[in-house]
Amino acid sequence: MYKIVQMDGGVCLSDGFFADGVSAGLKKNNAPDIAFIYSDAECEIASAFTTNKMYAAPIKHFRAKGEFKTNFVLINSKNANAMTGQAGVDDIHEVLEVLCSTCQEVKNPVMSSTGVIGVRLPKQKIQESIILFNLSKKEPKSASRAIMTTDTFAKEIAFKVELSDGRSFNIGAMAKGAGMINPAMATMLCFITTDADVGKSVMQEILDEVTVNTFNAISVDGDTSTNDTVMLLANAKSGTFHKEAFKEALFNVMHFLALEMVRDGEGATKLVTYNVSGAKNDKEAEIVAKALSDSLLVKTALFGEDPNWGRIASTVGASGVEAYEETLSISFDELCVYKKGELLFNEAMEEKAAAIMKLAKFSISCDLGIAEGSFTAYGCDLGYEYVKINADYRT
Amino acid sequence: MYKIVQMDGGVCLSDGFFADGVSAGLKKNNAPDIAFIYSDAECEIASAFTTNKMYAAPIKHFRAKGEFKTNFVLINSKNANAMTGQAGVDDIHEVLEVLCSTCQEVKNPVMSSTGVIGVRLPKQKIQESIILFNLSKKEPKSASRAIMTTDTFAKEIAFKVELSDGRSFNIGAMAKGAGMINPAMATMLCFITTDADVGKSVMQEILDEVTVNTFNAISVDGDTSTNDTVMLLANAKSGTFHKEAFKEALFNVMHFLALEMVRDGEGATKLVTYNVSGAKNDKEAEIVAKALSDSLLVKTALFGEDPNWGRIASTVGASGVEAYEETLSISFDELCVYKKGELLFNEAMEEKAAAIMKLAKFSISCDLGIAEGSFTAYGCDLGYEYVKINADYRT
Repeated sequence: MYKIVQMDGGVCLSDGFFADGVSAGLKKNNAPDIAFIYSDAECEIASAFTTNKMYAAPIKHFRAKGEFKTNFVLINSKNANAMTGQAGVDDIHEVLEVLCSTCQEVKNPVMSSTGVIGVRLPKQKIQESIILFNLSKKEPKSASRAIMTTDTFAKEIAFKVELSDGRSFNIGAMAKGAGMINPAMATMLCFITTDADVGKSVMQEILDEVTVNTFNAISVDGDTSTNDTVMLLANAKSGTFHKEAFKEALFNVMHFLALEMVRDGEGATKLVTYNVSGAKNDKEAEIVAKALSDSLLVKTALFGEDPNWGRIASTVGASGVEAYEETLSISFDELCVYKKGELLFNEAMEEKAAAIMKLAKFSISCDLGIAEGSFTAYGCDLGYEYVKINADYRT
Repeated sequence: MYKIVQMDGGVCLSDGFFADGVSAGLKKNNAPDIAFIYSDAECEIASAFTTNKMYAAPIKHFRAKGEFKTNFVLINSKNANAMTGQAGVDDIHEVLEVLCSTCQEVKNPVMSSTGVIGVRLPKQKIQESIILFNLSKKEPKSASRAIMTTDTFAKEIAFKVELSDGRSFNIGAMAKGAGMINPAMATMLCFITTDADVGKSVMQEILDEVTVNTFNAISVDGDTSTNDTVMLLANAKSGTFHKEAFKEALFNVMHFLALEMVRDGEGATKLVTYNVSGAKNDKEAEIVAKALSDSLLVKTALFGEDPNWGRIASTVGASGVEAYEETLSISFDELCVYKKGELLFNEAMEEKAAAIMKLAKFSISCDLGIAEGSFTAYGCDLGYEYVKINADYRT
């Protein structure tokens, strides 16, 4: 038996972890744009990266290191260091060299970047900011603000896991992500720290498993970035581990942050849960759930608060999976609007459905009525703000 | 040798074809909402329908007929007659029964619908409008206006094909489509008439071939409707056929109308041609071209007239095909902005690229630098108007 308790402290809750955000002048008005996470004990790392073939220089750098332990992650916003070739990787080496010679405690550091693609890293500015690092700071909020790009709020969470024998360990995280978020994991960065005493391979296995129903189940616009990264750092300082409890706590962390990203979807006003059931199998349910959360016509109908269930049916039909008009049922929250070929929709029902669509959070459920496959995905609406943010992004 | 000459006359140019649009009161202000195409000689039909599993009642009705000839197509806008089950098919039978008893000339008519999904066909209004049909009318513009939904302009085209021996035949068409247009053919209706003396199987083969690089190469929003239909009606009245000339004329018709649809993409301000070359094979080139024309981030960058080539690179990388940063090149019209790993972009180039992005028509070319695969797709930008149109569609 165990208890999972939400705590303050973000990435610094776990014993031995420190973090802060500083300004290197990449963002305007001296807003923090560089974050670091430091652990006073070496960490095992589990990771998940973008599936984009044009993956960014920090990911190349990470992969080239092979098996390694680290105690330091350096993160910058405003520049993705993507499409920068070998020069981009060289830039990272140069920045990290200055880091290591300035901060003697740092061992085997890695880097992570988010921002504009195709521009060389502002190396000098970042190098000059290293002098501002204070490795004894526990300022998780400052770190989480530094990694924001189009995010409208910083995202962090932490839990303490109390085992029945009195031992405990902690897990905390920060994340950024608001656009380019898609089922295949898109520009989102997430850094998770834990003092649990967990081995690398177990940690990687659990991370992979939890990713499927959290970061890989959300969508803002169906695009996949060059920089997506999840890193899980474990320094073992609690001397404690409990697999089931760890997995549940990690799920809580990643599920919370995934939903925070959707809630902060560029210009989003609604968080919608797509429950797909009755599919031929779980994979087909996942295809439908993601087709719904990605459909522009569904997203704009959500924005217009229009209970246009026909677009939902059409999207199910277009997704390519086995589906039949005669077995499909569609509900908004608990209100069934279409049931196995029966047109239930009338004026009274439209009023009720429209009231649900005005909520900030609701669910759309599709029962395909074929077999037992199911999947839950999360999405948001798409409104004028999304267009504004993305049309003006670089300026 | 032959000559293809553009003509007025749309679907009525071909000998023996008649068309008109009337109002059944489905649209406001007595705007035309019912169109018919009538041929005074029986027609062979070739067709292409949506791949959506929730295909609409008119498509079920058409398919249930098996092999048949017809001389009449009835088309309504404002109601898709989709997700209406067997009742939707029964409604069509009832409407066509009234049609046949009112207009004795009509043989084996078919129906086509576009509009809102999940509402029963306003059968009575349509039946009452049949009295307004005058089968000797050649009013192609009125017919093409009647089938519009969110289209901002009617779409028609016609060509006369003159063979070197003095014989000739005609081909003409009308189409609607502005939203839900996607590579897998989405709510677009297109009706093509010809007096060429062409057999059914040859005509179907040519239609399938031409569709790939016309209607299946355009995208507005990546959604696929329940009602997409292309019908090609041939009444053989010219007594003439020339396969090569027919194919070229049909391509001209469908290519023109496909681009008209993109140009009229809901809220679109730009028509962009995506030339993908150097891919592993044509299929991979097609995947990339369609990923680019579907990407929300690319589309919003186009709307913002922002030459954000990094999003193009990222979309290529995310599309799943074989691609390398070191072999990729990207151009806006003739301006190469990224060449095989080399960052060419600077302030002067940005100015030039921005000037191209302000054009109403331009091309984005991606050479993957791997092999010889190529494909050309067509897309548009996505702006506030798209959101407005689709958020408010039903109201």
